[in-house]
Amino acid sequence: MIFETIITSMDAAGRPHVTPFGIRHEGEFVIISPYKPSTTLDNILVTKHAVLNLTDDVRVFAGAFTNRQAWQLVVANKIAGFRLADCLAHVELKLTEVREDVTRPQLVMEKVFEQTHRAFKGFNRAQAAVIELAVLVSRLHMLPREKIEAELAYLQIAIDKTAGEHEREAWRWLIEKIENFYTVKQT
Amino acid sequence: MIFETIITSMDAAGRPHVTPFGIRHEGEFVIISPYKPSTTLDNILVTKHAVLNLTDDVRVFAGAFTNRQAWQLVVANKIAGFRLADCLAHVELKLTEVREDVTRPQLVMEKVFEQTHRAFKGFNRAQAAVIELAVLVSRLHMLPREKIEAELAYLQIAIDKTAGEHEREAWRWLIEKIENFYTVKQT
Repeated sequence: MIFETIITSMDAAGRPHVTPFGIRHEGEFVIISPYKPSTTLDNILVTKHAVLNLTDDVRVFAGAFTNRQAWQLVVANKIAGFRLADCLAHVELKLTEVREDVTRPQLVMEKVFEQTHRAFKGFNRAQAAVIELAVLVSRLHMLPREKIEAELAYLQIAIDKTAGEHEREAWRWLIEKIENFYTVKQT
Repeated sequence: MIFETIITSMDAAGRPHVTPFGIRHEGEFVIISPYKPSTTLDNILVTKHAVLNLTDDVRVFAGAFTNRQAWQLVVANKIAGFRLADCLAHVELKLTEVREDVTRPQLVMEKVFEQTHRAFKGFNRAQAAVIELAVLVSRLHMLPREKIEAELAYLQIAIDKTAGEHEREAWRWLIEKIENFYTVKQT
């Protein structure tokens, strides 16, 4: 089972890195599988720590895919690192094992500290639509334009019916990225 | 902004009723707009109370649409009523105003008591796919079969890639309902 989350890591100089990650749970451990090469992988191998952020603010996801910093950070409680200032919950993690792989090593992370900040408000179809569109945006180079546009039209229904301001803003950022992609491709 | 939640209400005889509801927040109030006639509407008008349950167990949603009782209840803390035993959070509500409407009156509910039980685990695309399929199932009579099947094929990807056992079980219940609908229609 894969959960779409935000992983914050830090480099040796103390600079934070924030990126969306699909993570898995394995018993009490969290498994992060970053591609080689990636900043998250480098950071965790150096500092041995990271933070798993559970947020319902889809602007953080859309922002990460469109070069916008749509978040604020605060220092973590028990480890050297950062967490999202605004999240429903966060889990501070320590690297305990590296399962090597040519393309995607598995980082086995132990939970050092967990904190719940706000309650889950329920499923919002617009938030799910933004997550789906973010997945499509990350695969623009691989998918036919007709498929992107067909799915976009379907996902748009949930935006029109159930979105709040955060979801509409995240949606616009992703739509702009898709439009730019096809404009550049045509010229 | 609409959140997909589970509303538990009770009739005058103390019998519980559990049903998925898209709710809205209006300042500090929760707005429930049940169709006329409905058990939830009758119950809230009689008892003046209900419980808003925030769960990530999509079997509760799929079960409600397929005549399965996929939940357990416990008594509420501050009001006469029930909540889901297993949920991330619940809010106990009291009716403060009825905005009359011919088809869908708005019930303005005040929050009496809130409790967080478990932390949000992050977005799961399979959970979102089950919610979307439940919406399609509730509109089987209105939508062309080709649209249902096209969306189903797209949603299936998230199930295959990101589902856990709860999501797969909920998915199967909904698929069975769709298959039965078209079988009966053809005979």
